[in-house]
Amino acid sequence: MKEAVILLSGGMDSATLIGYCLENEIQPHCLNINYGQKHQREIDSAKSIAKFYDFPFTSLDLSIIRGLLSGSALTDDIDVPEGYYKHETMKSTVVPNRNAILLSIGAGYAISLKADYIMIGAHGGDHDIYPDCRREFLEPLNDAFREGNYHKVNIRAPFLYDTKSNIVQRGIKYNIPYELTWTCYNGGKKACGKCGSCIERLEAFKNNGIEDPLEYEK
Amino acid sequence: MKEAVILLSGGMDSATLIGYCLENEIQPHCLNINYGQKHQREIDSAKSIAKFYDFPFTSLDLSIIRGLLSGSALTDDIDVPEGYYKHETMKSTVVPNRNAILLSIGAGYAISLKADYIMIGAHGGDHDIYPDCRREFLEPLNDAFREGNYHKVNIRAPFLYDTKSNIVQRGIKYNIPYELTWTCYNGGKKACGKCGSCIERLEAFKNNGIEDPLEYEK
Repeated sequence: MKEAVILLSGGMDSATLIGYCLENEIQPHCLNINYGQKHQREIDSAKSIAKFYDFPFTSLDLSIIRGLLSGSALTDDIDVPEGYYKHETMKSTVVPNRNAILLSIGAGYAISLKADYIMIGAHGGDHDIYPDCRREFLEPLNDAFREGNYHKVNIRAPFLYDTKSNIVQRGIKYNIPYELTWTCYNGGKKACGKCGSCIERLEAFKNNGIEDPLEYEK
Repeated sequence: MKEAVILLSGGMDSATLIGYCLENEIQPHCLNINYGQKHQREIDSAKSIAKFYDFPFTSLDLSIIRGLLSGSALTDDIDVPEGYYKHETMKSTVVPNRNAILLSIGAGYAISLKADYIMIGAHGGDHDIYPDCRREFLEPLNDAFREGNYHKVNIRAPFLYDTKSNIVQRGIKYNIPYELTWTCYNGGKKACGKCGSCIERLEAFKNNGIEDPLEYEK
C-alpha cells in the first residue's frame, strides 16, 4: 500500500483528498500547518476530519513565521475582501511562497516516514489568483525535491484540473463529511457567506444540486 | 542597490556570503533559522556576525519542526560521527529536505521585502553528501519560486563550485571575522576539533597557510 502525507488545511479540497486516497488505496498521514492564519477555526476542522477517519494527524504551529511573510490579508491586519473572486482584490490573500513552504515541510515529513507522496488539494479554480497552485510551479518543485533527497517522494495534486464543483462532485461520491470542513476566510462561529471563499463554496454545492451542510450567518 | 536575504547559519560559508555581498554592492538581510539543531551555539554566532557588520538580523525559531524531520544526527539523539567526511557516516547528518525548507522560508521573506535574491552558502564540498547543495536541486527550486510568486526572487549560491579552502581564501580577502563563526557539529564551549565539520574547517585554513582564529578543545 502506498503512503502519503496530506496537507490537511481543514478546507473542502484537502478533506476531499482523503476520499481520493481511500479510493486509490493510499494510506494518509494528515499534516496541518498553521502559518499564522488569523483564526484557529480551520485547524480545529482539520483535526475533526482526521479524527472522523481515524487517520494519524499532526499539527505544526508555524505561526511564528507570520512576521516574515507580511502583506497578506490571511495573516495580517488587512481586511479580507468580500464578494466574488476577482484577480486584483483576491491578490491580497496571497501569502508569499506559501505552497513552497508548506510542501517543503510536508515533503520533509514524508521523507522521514519513507512515504511515497506529499499531497495538496490545489485545484483549477485557484490558478488565476494563486500562481503557487499551478502545474508550472509544482513540476519544478517536484524535480527539486527528488534531486535534493535520497528518499524520493512525489508531489501529487490530483485535483489540479478540477473546478471547485468537480471537487464537491467527487466528495459526494466519497461521502466526505463536509459539515466538518471550514472554508470561510473569516473565523466566526458560523461561516460569513460573504467572502470570496464562501461564495465559491456555496456555488460549488449549488452546481451539484445539493445543499451545503455547513451553517452560514445568513 | 540590490537586496538579498542571506541564510546566515553562523558557520563560515554563510558568514563569507556577507563579504561577497559587500564586494558586489548587495544589501544583506540576515536570516537565521533554527530547525532544531542540537545546540544554540551556531545561532549565537549568527547573531554576533550580523551585529559585527550592523546588518538587519532576524532569527526564526522553527525548532518545533524537529519532531517531523526525524532520523538526522543534527537534530536527533544519534551520535555525530567523528573523523573525516565519508559518505556513509556523514549521511546521518542529512536532514530531510532541509535546504528546500530553509530556502522556501527565506524566499518568502525576500518576497515580502521585495528583495532580489535569497542567498545560501552551499559549496562544492557539500555536493557529495548533501544532494540539496547541488545545482541539480537549486535550479528547479529557483524555477518553482519564480513561477509560484508575483514578485520574482532568484536563489543565489555564489560558492557552489568553491571548495572550503576557496571560501577561506575569499574570506581572508573580505576580512571576515572567522573568530565569531561556529562550524563544529557539537555545541561545546570550544570547538571539538574531531567531528567531520571541524576537520574540514581546519584543513581549509591550513591549505591557505593561516591559523584558524577559533579556539579548539585540543
